[in-house]
Amino acid sequence: MRTTVGIVGAGPAGLLLARLLHNAGIDSVVLESRDRPYVEQRQRAGILEQGTVDVLRAAGVGARMDREGLPHDGIELRFDRRRHRVDFPALTGGRRVMVYAQTEVCKDLIAAQLADGGPLLFEAEALAVEGAETDRPRVRFRHGGREDVLDCDYVVGCDGFWGVARKAVPAALSRTYERTYPFGWLGILADVAPSHDELVYARGERGFALLSMRSPSVTRAYLQVPADTDAADWSDDGIWDELDRRLEVDDPHWRLARGPVTSKSVTPMRSYVHEPMRHGRLFLAGDAAHIVPPTGAKGLNLAVGDVVTFARALIARRDTGDATLLDTYSETCLRRVWQAERFSYAMTTMLHRAPDATAFDDKIQLARLDRLTSARAAETDLAEAYTGFPL
Amino acid sequence: MRTTVGIVGAGPAGLLLARLLHNAGIDSVVLESRDRPYVEQRQRAGILEQGTVDVLRAAGVGARMDREGLPHDGIELRFDRRRHRVDFPALTGGRRVMVYAQTEVCKDLIAAQLADGGPLLFEAEALAVEGAETDRPRVRFRHGGREDVLDCDYVVGCDGFWGVARKAVPAALSRTYERTYPFGWLGILADVAPSHDELVYARGERGFALLSMRSPSVTRAYLQVPADTDAADWSDDGIWDELDRRLEVDDPHWRLARGPVTSKSVTPMRSYVHEPMRHGRLFLAGDAAHIVPPTGAKGLNLAVGDVVTFARALIARRDTGDATLLDTYSETCLRRVWQAERFSYAMTTMLHRAPDATAFDDKIQLARLDRLTSARAAETDLAEAYTGFPL
Repeated sequence: MRTTVGIVGAGPAGLLLARLLHNAGIDSVVLESRDRPYVEQRQRAGILEQGTVDVLRAAGVGARMDREGLPHDGIELRFDRRRHRVDFPALTGGRRVMVYAQTEVCKDLIAAQLADGGPLLFEAEALAVEGAETDRPRVRFRHGGREDVLDCDYVVGCDGFWGVARKAVPAALSRTYERTYPFGWLGILADVAPSHDELVYARGERGFALLSMRSPSVTRAYLQVPADTDAADWSDDGIWDELDRRLEVDDPHWRLARGPVTSKSVTPMRSYVHEPMRHGRLFLAGDAAHIVPPTGAKGLNLAVGDVVTFARALIARRDTGDATLLDTYSETCLRRVWQAERFSYAMTTMLHRAPDATAFDDKIQLARLDRLTSARAAETDLAEAYTGFPL
Repeated sequence: MRTTVGIVGAGPAGLLLARLLHNAGIDSVVLESRDRPYVEQRQRAGILEQGTVDVLRAAGVGARMDREGLPHDGIELRFDRRRHRVDFPALTGGRRVMVYAQTEVCKDLIAAQLADGGPLLFEAEALAVEGAETDRPRVRFRHGGREDVLDCDYVVGCDGFWGVARKAVPAALSRTYERTYPFGWLGILADVAPSHDELVYARGERGFALLSMRSPSVTRAYLQVPADTDAADWSDDGIWDELDRRLEVDDPHWRLARGPVTSKSVTPMRSYVHEPMRHGRLFLAGDAAHIVPPTGAKGLNLAVGDVVTFARALIARRDTGDATLLDTYSETCLRRVWQAERFSYAMTTMLHRAPDATAFDDKIQLARLDRLTSARAAETDLAEAYTGFPL
């Protein structure tokens, strides 16, 4: 098999890249190890930055998002029994975010890709990327019981943290940066209308809580828990009780609505960056190159930024012969990646209670929140970062 | 002896308070354990916030400061061989800072106090503050070889971290918050014109450096060193070499001018807050209640904020009979104190290299600096904090 761009992984990064390339008349093949139902159902992120929304619309896959997604003009910060709304459009000149689950983004992109007859192979397990240093890199993969090879001009690794693409960058040329956190998120889905119409980020004395949503009738909520927590150890009532405690606020109108919990799982928290994001004709995008803790809602949006950067660079190369943008792909992406890492780290350390936190650390968290909610410059800095760094 | 306000300590906090009260027609007595030459010579801070400058002028002690002080409209941040100027007036609507050493502030305040015949006793060592819970608190002290008692309506403890005033707050009512840092500052004075006309805060790969000044002909400079460093272990050449390395920048015009080092000392770095700052009729101000690491240049300015708050509250009490401002003294001061603690902590952790710093930590520091120097909101947040929180 032969294509211009071999794309490893049909998550949002790989699928969006295929779409962007198709729209520009550049052919690609997407290889995905899992089957289609799995890809369309794995629960992940749900907050799309303004720039991500714009990209999906421009790519022709924004119709259902605009129908069913929930545009959000702000978030609420809750701490010390106080509540404060951050008004995104007022602070950023009109920018906002969209609540629309990653699973839905993937469904839309898969449907568009298959409608155009775009080569998208499910249950096609990439085994290795080879020849990245040559003009003809290739992906060895297994599909339908046999091994095959995809010959490419470029390979883009969108196969996530555990994928094979990153392994093709020689260790001697790689630098990795990592931080693991001594806590995770216990996340639930519940069949009950969200108790608040925007996301609520709460710093409780007992730890962080996030009240979010999947739809007008489905609540998504998270609790900071010790990293080694087994979700099965938490009863539904126990989860709601703890959410209630951490979301406490001096407002007689506040009430947390409870409902049947339909899903429970624990997500570890990690910051990770692999540099460089390019080796020869292999380009890494999304989780294949970097992980952020979910506090800043940046993971999916970073992946979108990577593939937009690659698509632009390849189109420029084709149209002008100038490979500068391809050559600077790694630097361009990494500047944005590190801003997202910084923001996610700042949000995480401002809102979570570390097991070894001192009383001084607690006070600094509260002072940071006090600053954010009383100084327009600080609040603007947050709103700009949350709604998205420029693409 | 009898007075309205007994002031323990003739540092800038105590001396300024005496002046503010004198100007308002309220009598006070200042007790200082050291002699006048010592007080007039101890090297401390040198950066006055806009609000501090305004207060000194309004108090009638700004004339020499305005003649000899150096108004600064910005600072330089240096990292990754880059230099970036933060323009305070442009970002804050005209606010700036003044380089004028604490020793000079003290000299001006002492001269004004003695010219008015204000009771200011040197070598008067406070032994204890007693009766803070009563209407008639008192300070026991030793002066001229014998013990005496100063009976007061109010006592203000401006006697620094090691003073006796804080000890009069019962331990059961006290909460303390503390962080010590695994490094200190090796500070020098040198007889050479400063190499740059504004302060330079540098994050070097080998640690922090600050290039500052005392006057147009005297350089003040600091190096991050391990906490247990003996200043005598550093040769003058060694200090200049290390400053050169940490201040390195891609600018052919940059050159660090060297000169005779006239003073060398190591300052530990600590964050500390005692709550509450008031117990009955005892009020704590300045270092008696809180310490900040010097990175944010906030110590002296916080002390000024405390005594301005106390003076206002006492004048309101006298003029209207309303004690609300006195009763809320601690809360009012602490909000500002914690903002200064937050800012000093942020500046310290952004610019210093911790002994256990990981490569990820280094990258986060650089991303924070990248953000500060490329996003106006983030830069404004810094400029507002540096030029001073509202009094």
